[in-house]
Amino acid sequence: MVNEKMLALGTKRSCIRELFEYGLKQAAIVGKENVFDYSLGNPSIPAPPPVNKAFVGIVETMDSLAVHGYTPAPGAPDARKAVVDELNARYGVRLRPENLFFTCGAAPALVSVLRALAVEGAEIIGVAPFFPEYTPFVECAGAAFRVVPADRPAFQIDLAAMEAAINAHTQAVILNSPNNPSGVIYTRETLSKLGALLTRKGQEYGHPIYIIADEPYRELVYDGAEVPFLPSIYPNTVVCYSYSKSLSLPGERIGYFLVPDWAEDSEALFAAAAGAARATGHVCAPALQQRVVAACAACRPDLAAYDKNRLTLYEALTSYGYECVKPMGAFYMFVRAPGDDAQRFSDAAKEKNLLLVPVGDFGCPDYFRICTCVSHDMILRSLPAFKELIEEFA
Amino acid sequence: MVNEKMLALGTKRSCIRELFEYGLKQAAIVGKENVFDYSLGNPSIPAPPPVNKAFVGIVETMDSLAVHGYTPAPGAPDARKAVVDELNARYGVRLRPENLFFTCGAAPALVSVLRALAVEGAEIIGVAPFFPEYTPFVECAGAAFRVVPADRPAFQIDLAAMEAAINAHTQAVILNSPNNPSGVIYTRETLSKLGALLTRKGQEYGHPIYIIADEPYRELVYDGAEVPFLPSIYPNTVVCYSYSKSLSLPGERIGYFLVPDWAEDSEALFAAAAGAARATGHVCAPALQQRVVAACAACRPDLAAYDKNRLTLYEALTSYGYECVKPMGAFYMFVRAPGDDAQRFSDAAKEKNLLLVPVGDFGCPDYFRICTCVSHDMILRSLPAFKELIEEFA
Repeated sequence: MVNEKMLALGTKRSCIRELFEYGLKQAAIVGKENVFDYSLGNPSIPAPPPVNKAFVGIVETMDSLAVHGYTPAPGAPDARKAVVDELNARYGVRLRPENLFFTCGAAPALVSVLRALAVEGAEIIGVAPFFPEYTPFVECAGAAFRVVPADRPAFQIDLAAMEAAINAHTQAVILNSPNNPSGVIYTRETLSKLGALLTRKGQEYGHPIYIIADEPYRELVYDGAEVPFLPSIYPNTVVCYSYSKSLSLPGERIGYFLVPDWAEDSEALFAAAAGAARATGHVCAPALQQRVVAACAACRPDLAAYDKNRLTLYEALTSYGYECVKPMGAFYMFVRAPGDDAQRFSDAAKEKNLLLVPVGDFGCPDYFRICTCVSHDMILRSLPAFKELIEEFA
Repeated sequence: MVNEKMLALGTKRSCIRELFEYGLKQAAIVGKENVFDYSLGNPSIPAPPPVNKAFVGIVETMDSLAVHGYTPAPGAPDARKAVVDELNARYGVRLRPENLFFTCGAAPALVSVLRALAVEGAEIIGVAPFFPEYTPFVECAGAAFRVVPADRPAFQIDLAAMEAAINAHTQAVILNSPNNPSGVIYTRETLSKLGALLTRKGQEYGHPIYIIADEPYRELVYDGAEVPFLPSIYPNTVVCYSYSKSLSLPGERIGYFLVPDWAEDSEALFAAAAGAARATGHVCAPALQQRVVAACAACRPDLAAYDKNRLTLYEALTSYGYECVKPMGAFYMFVRAPGDDAQRFSDAAKEKNLLLVPVGDFGCPDYFRICTCVSHDMILRSLPAFKELIEEFA
């Protein structure tokens, strides 16, 4: 007598979590230093110092009722303004605080926007590789999820496949750049072409096709790479953001959705997403966290550790013969499994206590994901296992 | 091209919020001291001192990665244990940490449990007066909301009406005690009789009928009144709790749902509710807040200010001739509108800058709600307006 779909979602074991728990068990047997866990995308650099200062300072100096009281459903006006002001200064745009709705991270932002767009027969397009939770988010919103295959080996967007996937029911395309799991950043050229395609198709079908820009990794880029601000390239863009990675606050659940005035039907879309937040019982994101990110809107993470990990792993793995796109953002590496069966390869790696996520759920069953948000020492200790594995699969 | 239902939810103005905003405008014209705003149920006593100490202490002493990192979806194991241990000690039960799932307050706890129970044709029963958001929570979960009329003037539960409302599709009854808006606590006798009815009906229809105990006001009681622990009276009870009122943390969004082992199909129900949390993008409630409430699990609010307000208002209003049930919990008073049209009465009160919520949305169109979480001075200043009004309506 319970909902079967919800039951399935609540009981299906996550492959990532299973690997992680296996790692904990193995560590007790063979020693923590002999387990090489690349499974979890949990930041390994601490929050920038102003963040913890803000947590403490706000609680110690603000009136307790004011700091912990309800904010309006979309968030505290001054906090919304601080975040929008920083975006305006950075990207030369004119967003208003009323365009931004604080959420408990990017996931509920995506859910609210998807539910706002879930009209009868709605289809949402994802681009492989993609974050696996998109599938339940879209399907439980009542829409169909269509996947555009990966554009290999560069992992940009296959525009011909995208065009073929769009039809009169297409309401939105979800983009995740810098990408989990590939680490790729979609270039300005890719995004401009996609924007032109969506504009043309939107005119053909007589309604906007939105881009939902899922951007928790926006601030995590290397070598000065550019992450273009999508609403400036394609007007019908809704941004879903999280501070989980940029401020190393994944547990604190704070992010937002942003619907610029210049998006078509922006007012209705914002209102419907706010309505979806209400229907799921999620208005007024944690008030303290709203104030902390507002105070730290211009803070940037110190990426030196991630960058060092990225370069060490990229250089070692490619020198051993692995095929891998060089990650330019986020903290992942996306590696082709020798033998083209990532599950089989991951199982073999597990025998060496090397925990790699086979990314069938991400839409690429022949690739595995490495999280580079680990200790550099662990990377160095793990390299022989990577070398042995590719030799065994040769 | 947006979902009409979500749009309606996002654009419908809340009567409470309209009153509140009207109050702010009037304050600018006639002076803050001449506006008597009883509209918002926002705690007016600060968080107990250990709460802010816990916020600061945890941030200052714990490793930043550990404090702000992802917790497992249902919450940090030690935090779940601390909350459950305190309940076990208080109520003499044997809950396990695995029975508890942290949520961003009671609202998403309710939403997850409702979605878990939303099988084809599901009906959920509410008891008037009820929190108006139950309607979108139930309907957007895909179930039908049936309301059992209020049992006047005591505002306990009309068991004959309840029996008539139950059918083979009934999945659950939502109870809110201490009640918003009536301030009434359902007695042990009421709950025992209801439990017996639900047991009998569950047997008749061959499936459990759950009680969903929505209990954000559990700790807010006066004169030593008892709030019976429902899972000990009726085994098929799921508790949805929030610390918003008990620790004066409404903006911080922390609560839980609790499915005891002794409830029928408890494992499936817990898993389906966890699946619903996942489908709505809400797993891992704010980590810092989890740790704070775990550290303060035994903290109780100092209710002296609410109690003083309650007695002052109750004595004054009844002495003027208002009909009102004496509130034994929460921070509301539920008053019959002279003339039996609460909207008309509220409009007249507004002319005197007295802001009262007509509670049509709560299921009782002839009653208005007073929030007693205000300053005592404001109460004293507002009394003449209450007296004038009842005289005008006589």
